[in-house]
Amino acid sequence: MGELPMMNTTMDMMKGAMSSSDMPMKDMDPMMMQEAIEALSACTQACIMCADSDAGEGMGRCAGLCANCADVCDTMTRMLLRMNGMDPQVMMSMMQTTIVMCRACSAECMMHAEMSEHCRMCAMACDQAVMAMEKMMSAMSEAMPMA
Amino acid sequence: MGELPMMNTTMDMMKGAMSSSDMPMKDMDPMMMQEAIEALSACTQACIMCADSDAGEGMGRCAGLCANCADVCDTMTRMLLRMNGMDPQVMMSMMQTTIVMCRACSAECMMHAEMSEHCRMCAMACDQAVMAMEKMMSAMSEAMPMA
Amino acid sequence: MGELPMMNTTMDMMKGAMSSSDMPMKDMDPMMMQEAIEALSACTQACIMCADSDAGEGMGRCAGLCANCADVCDTMTRMLLRMNGMDPQVMMSMMQTTIVMCRACSAECMMHAEMSEHCRMCAMACDQAVMAMEKMMSAMSEAMPMA
Amino acid sequence: MGELPMMNTTMDMMKGAMSSSDMPMKDMDPMMMQEAIEALSACTQACIMCADSDAGEGMGRCAGLCANCADVCDTMTRMLLRMNGMDPQVMMSMMQTTIVMCRACSAECMMHAEMSEHCRMCAMACDQAVMAMEKMMSAMSEAMPMA
Repeated sequence: MGELPMMNTTMDMMKGAMSSSDMPMKDMDPMMMQEAIEALSACTQACIMCADSDAGEGMGRCAGLCANCADVCDTMTRMLLRMNGMDPQVMMSMMQTTIVMCRACSAECMMHAEMSEHCRMCAMACDQAVMAMEKMMSAMSEAMPMA
Repeated sequence: MGELPMMNTTMDMMKGAMSSSDMPMKDMDPMMMQEAIEALSACTQACIMCADSDAGEGMGRCAGLCANCADVCDTMTRMLLRMNGMDPQVMMSMMQTTIVMCRACSAECMMHAEMSEHCRMCAMACDQAVMAMEKMMSAMSEAMPMA
Repeated sequence: MGELPMMNTTMDMMKGAMSSSDMPMKDMDPMMMQEAIEALSACTQACIMCADSDAGEGMGRCAGLCANCADVCDTMTRMLLRMNGMDPQVMMSMMQTTIVMCRACSAECMMHAEMSEHCRMCAMACDQAVMAMEKMMSAMSEAMPMA
Repeated sequence: MGELPMMNTTMDMMKGAMSSSDMPMKDMDPMMMQEAIEALSACTQACIMCADSDAGEGMGRCAGLCANCADVCDTMTRMLLRMNGMDPQVMMSMMQTTIVMCRACSAECMMHAEMSEHCRMCAMACDQAVMAMEKMMSAMSEAMPMA
């Protein structure tokens, strides 16, 4: 487990699913998909931990935004993993929502980054998720032209 | 349990949370919030059952869209329940995504509604979630003016 | 929506799924399944709201247990909705975990029930979920004898 | 992102949370926590992909068990990330359920591993999650003695 073999499992399964899919997603770069899933998964985990740490510190809005951000990124991850459920318009809308959500969470966390290390790290994880989503949206808007 | 007392719990807790909140949500109608949560919750449940029934029938795209729709509606429900995490821009974006998602799921399910009763009912649950979201978006856009 | 038609959707879909299932679940009482799903769903919602309200009040352990309880009840609900995924041993184990989780959450919430109305209501929702699970476990242990 | 920096984020945040916690978890090995979270996260992802791929192939029971297993592992992951919500008895019960769930999912997937590559890989991910949970349970039963 020291070399993170599980991530290879996800990537290998994704390559297999994409090659046998007749979805518009089949032309996407598996590596980019993998990176997006990792960024979203890391953001989900950071937000769950940040919300949990906030709880004892009286930071209600931070905890609420982090809890929401965890659920949004979790759902976005699941949608990227389901080749059969890929609908271009739905995917683009959910990626846009994920970006708006992660930006709001990052902005809130940055407000107490100096006094709270977990908020600083959570904000960084949110920023990475935003970047991964922006990259994915550019690629998808080319690969999946909407009528 | 025959008279659905649990739903009253949700509504009672929501009234309490809204009254003590300094969020823009505090002026929302608790009954409308409640109806939206019920419609989303029913849609989540219908989609999980529809995806599960699809599994044995070779309807991959329907199963995938239903699984995605269940996760989106579940996350939307959670976001409506968290007064402290309410950010107007994020809420509007997620409600828009929920509408796009439910419409795509409903359209797919309607394609095999005649041969598959669970698809017909799932489509109806999606349509009700769309209506609840549209109503909520109108109300929120009045109650939570964005800069 | 005033008469909660969505709940009927869940029940109608469940009856259909159970009648066409060759799973051990097909002999379960649809009404009991429905009541369990409602109790779990109400508990999930109460726990999400309680965790969110806790955030600003410095009740870390209550918020953490409620967040866990919401996720456990949400997953238990999903498992009851999937006829095709029903495995007797797995279902019994998850129901047992749900009972242990709801009891721990209820006990914690009851400790500040006097000063916090949302904790009192959350504890009640947890207790109802425990009762629904106990009833379901008795019925399942009869309907699904394990080798 | 090529070197998986997000995982380091999770580990760094976990170390911080554990050091400041007065929970019984504070004496756990952060590396073991990290490995368990990665194994569970990989299993969640594999199960979501396997269920999605099953959908078109008429493997209802496999899809249902995988969908359940994804939700159970997702919830287990969330519970390991919340230091404030850690209750020894609840954690032990949920880890036991995760083991039973992953074993049932692995056994089902192995039945069609020869014809279905995603099932073979999903079974492997389930087996790794079982091993991580067993290791964690041994460690927890030492670190968190129950009355």
